[in-house]
Amino acid sequence: MSRPRRGGRPQRGGGADDEPALEVIPGRQPVAEALRAGRALRWVVVDRRGGGTLDDLAEQARQAGLDVRAATRDELDAMAGEVRHQGVVAVAEPFAYADLADVAGADLVVVVDGVTDPRNLGAIVRVSEQAGAGGVVIRDKRAAGPSPAAEKASAGALSWLPVVRVTNIARALATLRDAGLWTLGLAGEAEWTVWDAPLMDERVALVVGEEGRGLSRLVAEQADALVAIPMAGRLDSLNASTATAVAAFEWRRRHLARAAATG
Amino acid sequence: MSRPRRGGRPQRGGGADDEPALEVIPGRQPVAEALRAGRALRWVVVDRRGGGTLDDLAEQARQAGLDVRAATRDELDAMAGEVRHQGVVAVAEPFAYADLADVAGADLVVVVDGVTDPRNLGAIVRVSEQAGAGGVVIRDKRAAGPSPAAEKASAGALSWLPVVRVTNIARALATLRDAGLWTLGLAGEAEWTVWDAPLMDERVALVVGEEGRGLSRLVAEQADALVAIPMAGRLDSLNASTATAVAAFEWRRRHLARAAATG
Repeated sequence: MSRPRRGGRPQRGGGADDEPALEVIPGRQPVAEALRAGRALRWVVVDRRGGGTLDDLAEQARQAGLDVRAATRDELDAMAGEVRHQGVVAVAEPFAYADLADVAGADLVVVVDGVTDPRNLGAIVRVSEQAGAGGVVIRDKRAAGPSPAAEKASAGALSWLPVVRVTNIARALATLRDAGLWTLGLAGEAEWTVWDAPLMDERVALVVGEEGRGLSRLVAEQADALVAIPMAGRLDSLNASTATAVAAFEWRRRHLARAAATG
Repeated sequence: MSRPRRGGRPQRGGGADDEPALEVIPGRQPVAEALRAGRALRWVVVDRRGGGTLDDLAEQARQAGLDVRAATRDELDAMAGEVRHQGVVAVAEPFAYADLADVAGADLVVVVDGVTDPRNLGAIVRVSEQAGAGGVVIRDKRAAGPSPAAEKASAGALSWLPVVRVTNIARALATLRDAGLWTLGLAGEAEWTVWDAPLMDERVALVVGEEGRGLSRLVAEQADALVAIPMAGRLDSLNASTATAVAAFEWRRRHLARAAATG
């Protein structure tokens, strides 16, 4: 793939050579975490007016042996699309997906069944990382994947947490079950709650669907159990990343309590 | 206040008569909840091309005795600013804040100490409503308030949950404490966690600060206790609305368990 002009938008996939697309990572925290995680970056583009945090990031990038380029605000805007870049963008190698086998040994895996908003996906990856998940599984069709908006919303978590992309979520759940994980689907209409479901302190694959639509039927049938988050109030559906946060941290509370009890 | 032209942006505050600004509520779910909650609306503006859900909303608005106007996409875009309106916007009376005394009788009040991103504020109001809070308290200076972006992110919760605006958060906490609430501040460096803090099953005012900066010093000192959300992983700060979600639902879990135990 040819390098773009200084500060220009990197060439995306689908070109003559059909290489996978470079990944654009906008924003100060996402770029800082990409550097800290040692993510494979091609170069870093910084607002030419500089400033304290931007100068620090540029220096860190240089120390990591990266090419640092200065750009105008307009050039940065063009690279980041509609995402607020805060004066800095990193251009990374095409996103390196993990294999399902790489994450199947974790105590918690978060499986995302068709979330289409990249900001929601980024927020799910962020909170999964913070709750102690070993990886996130996403669908390759009709679903958000890594993108500038997802990178920004993940606050850098996409540089740390393995992401697995699969064609068939139901089949991925079967693989995770074979690896000893219980598959629990979040569903508003479930009889169990995240508070009383007996499996919530075990090794778990937590399956989250699109807000409003919920899990696809096949995936819901494939799960070992469905669990609900008991809500008060008038609104009837939680945001997908909020639901992930509540369920994943409740898993963490119970899993740690069980580990302490069995010492 | 004079009515705007058809589909035009309503006149905001600061005009000759200095009336408070009308509130713009963009998006299908926010408008549907505003109608369902019986919120004081002036009129509803719908994309003139119509469509299933839009026609339903227009009909509900008419049945509520409201003036329904047709507008072009450009006119709707101008009204909603940068917020995705999904073809519909409601124009409401100036936001009606509640008094602190109106919410001080609740079992849970969420106090927001200086969150500046309106989307984060909207998400906090949404999850507070769903976790059973009786109201949200916000600051009147250097902080996000109700706005089109906040209305959208709240998914309609701003039409249901009382919001109190105060000049001094520390003083508001004193008032809430006098009303029998324990004031618990979320802080990453706290010794107690939301899981083991003894007060988490009591009546609580949960205080949330700005992501990254946390609570202001005076507010942290004023709180009865500080509590942390124990995180795994590499990232060190939760999004403010995610932190609110985890803490508020943990409060709900423990409060309900206590209520069940004491009959």
